[in-house]
Amino acid sequence: MSWTLRKADLDDLARGAALLGTGGGGDPFVGKMLVTQALGEAGEITILDPEELDDDAWVIPVAQMGAPTVVVEKMPRGTEPELALITLEKHTGRTADATMPMECGGINSMIPLLVAARRGLPVVDADGMGRAFPQLEMETFSVYGISASPLAMANEHDEVAIFDTGSDNARLEGLARGVTSRFGGMAHIAQYSMTGADVKRTAIPRTLSLASAIGRSIRLSREQRVDPVQALVDGLADTLYGYGRVLFHGKVIDVDRRTDEGFARGSVRIAGVGDEELEVQFQNENLIAVQSGVMVAIVPDLICIVEADTAEPITTEGLRYGQRVAVIGIATPPIMRTPEALAVFGPASFGLDRPFLPVETLEQPVLAE
Amino acid sequence: MSWTLRKADLDDLARGAALLGTGGGGDPFVGKMLVTQALGEAGEITILDPEELDDDAWVIPVAQMGAPTVVVEKMPRGTEPELALITLEKHTGRTADATMPMECGGINSMIPLLVAARRGLPVVDADGMGRAFPQLEMETFSVYGISASPLAMANEHDEVAIFDTGSDNARLEGLARGVTSRFGGMAHIAQYSMTGADVKRTAIPRTLSLASAIGRSIRLSREQRVDPVQALVDGLADTLYGYGRVLFHGKVIDVDRRTDEGFARGSVRIAGVGDEELEVQFQNENLIAVQSGVMVAIVPDLICIVEADTAEPITTEGLRYGQRVAVIGIATPPIMRTPEALAVFGPASFGLDRPFLPVETLEQPVLAE
Repeated sequence: MSWTLRKADLDDLARGAALLGTGGGGDPFVGKMLVTQALGEAGEITILDPEELDDDAWVIPVAQMGAPTVVVEKMPRGTEPELALITLEKHTGRTADATMPMECGGINSMIPLLVAARRGLPVVDADGMGRAFPQLEMETFSVYGISASPLAMANEHDEVAIFDTGSDNARLEGLARGVTSRFGGMAHIAQYSMTGADVKRTAIPRTLSLASAIGRSIRLSREQRVDPVQALVDGLADTLYGYGRVLFHGKVIDVDRRTDEGFARGSVRIAGVGDEELEVQFQNENLIAVQSGVMVAIVPDLICIVEADTAEPITTEGLRYGQRVAVIGIATPPIMRTPEALAVFGPASFGLDRPFLPVETLEQPVLAE
Repeated sequence: MSWTLRKADLDDLARGAALLGTGGGGDPFVGKMLVTQALGEAGEITILDPEELDDDAWVIPVAQMGAPTVVVEKMPRGTEPELALITLEKHTGRTADATMPMECGGINSMIPLLVAARRGLPVVDADGMGRAFPQLEMETFSVYGISASPLAMANEHDEVAIFDTGSDNARLEGLARGVTSRFGGMAHIAQYSMTGADVKRTAIPRTLSLASAIGRSIRLSREQRVDPVQALVDGLADTLYGYGRVLFHGKVIDVDRRTDEGFARGSVRIAGVGDEELEVQFQNENLIAVQSGVMVAIVPDLICIVEADTAEPITTEGLRYGQRVAVIGIATPPIMRTPEALAVFGPASFGLDRPFLPVETLEQPVLAE
């Protein structure tokens, strides 16, 4: 069902999207500021249910691209993603009827709202990752045959770049990543233009609604003084994702993080009760959680680190020594677990030499090699 | 005066252009093969004198971009520069009345001929360097106010990129260089679109004619068994360049060459009579010649290394131990020696901590520090 987003809805959406960002997807504070400003101009934004999209409607997704470690220090001007969209419209000769997120995340769930408010467009309640991933080709759009090309990029100096490179979406990612680095570590992009029919076929539906529901659950639990982490996990059963579990409770005892090739890479170690320890590796997003040598969750399933008391999501660039955290594992929807999907964003895509095992099958954890 | 280029004219033009390429500008063999193929289709090409260009004519220069060390190993398909031109035409909504070289060189004097033959366009007898330079902003076009943006790039896989970045041509160079590296070290580009009036104001005129005359001089000297190096130098007096001199004769005793950041950088040492030695430093092109501690020529003046017996130009990637060579210094035209021009492609632009001194004033060489 389509719905109307107002300023009062923003906190919940930003917080829930940050959780689904699974460590990446950008700082929710920055995302919220951007869209607050945008809503100040437009008042409200229509969030279109994908099933209500006309099959012939033309949808142009927009996003921010770059290492979260850069993005958290470099505030967008706010005009960049709109310029990317306009540039792509001009290049293809086709104007957007709606925009859409490419991923869930504190920033990238917000960027389409910013563009929508400025351009008077609706936003489709769906995206191509159902979480956040570090690379442009890691989209269900790409898995199910939508070309990432042509792609338009823009920056805060009104500089634009366009790539038109045919069907190899991974190759396009490399080209765009190089420009992002030379743009200073951050760019805004418009790509994966597609029809309404293709949105229905390839996107993860209702992820803006899900993010809003997660954010609302966290807020209400805090107000009602029930455990927000457990409430959040329990609430997932009724969603497309269907399953969530608290994997670990503990204190952050080590963060190893570096920014290279435009990505934030590293790992975090969390000490629990007794000798128990959980290590999470990340590339922008959390990729694998290993508890005292035993794998408990792996990409593309979601590994979310939150503050233990408040369920406030912590992004990889926000991890600090001493934080008391809970680590949550969430199952991804079936469309993200097909062999075609795992070939694009399964463990091997991140250099992990392990098969994908659904988080709900790892309640009796398997022994890691 | 405009003239018609035929297949029989190609050897002279390619050889003369390679000399003006001053060590860079690509392998003349590759350039000649490309344009031979192109002429096979079109028969002949009109070379337009810039003074005969209509002021309102629209001219789109084309070139190959990349490290010569890569280009000599990777043969273009031949469609790339045409695709770059078409892409720029589509992006700007304005079609070319003529194309033009951006620099002199074994390849980059030829690329516009290739496009001209395939598109049925004339080629303007002029360019923006009057020699070869390693970077896109090192153009008299840029010095005298023509924007390098928008720029279109294409490769042999029909992948295209467009940059539209405003007035900072040096910044555009960096962005395009990054894409060139990711294209595999070579790209073909169309940029510096301008009117006929701007060509007359900013270009070095009649450099295709000059290259042809130099090539003819070398060929006829060989046939007539006179010294082709001396004949070539003597012939420069009547040209826009006005001055040339043999700086050194000797044998190559050391070549230090590496490819980094998309450039071929290094130096060559040449041993002469007795203890005399000449060292030439290069970045794609030859930059400075120092004879036993004394500077004898410096960029933007031309430093050309040729085979001593035949005056065959040797590019930096063709330098080998043991070659018997002559090194020629040639004055650049006045338009390339203004303070504005020297600010863009004078010694400091290449990290050389020396003032520009015209080669004709260095007959009594100054002592190097």
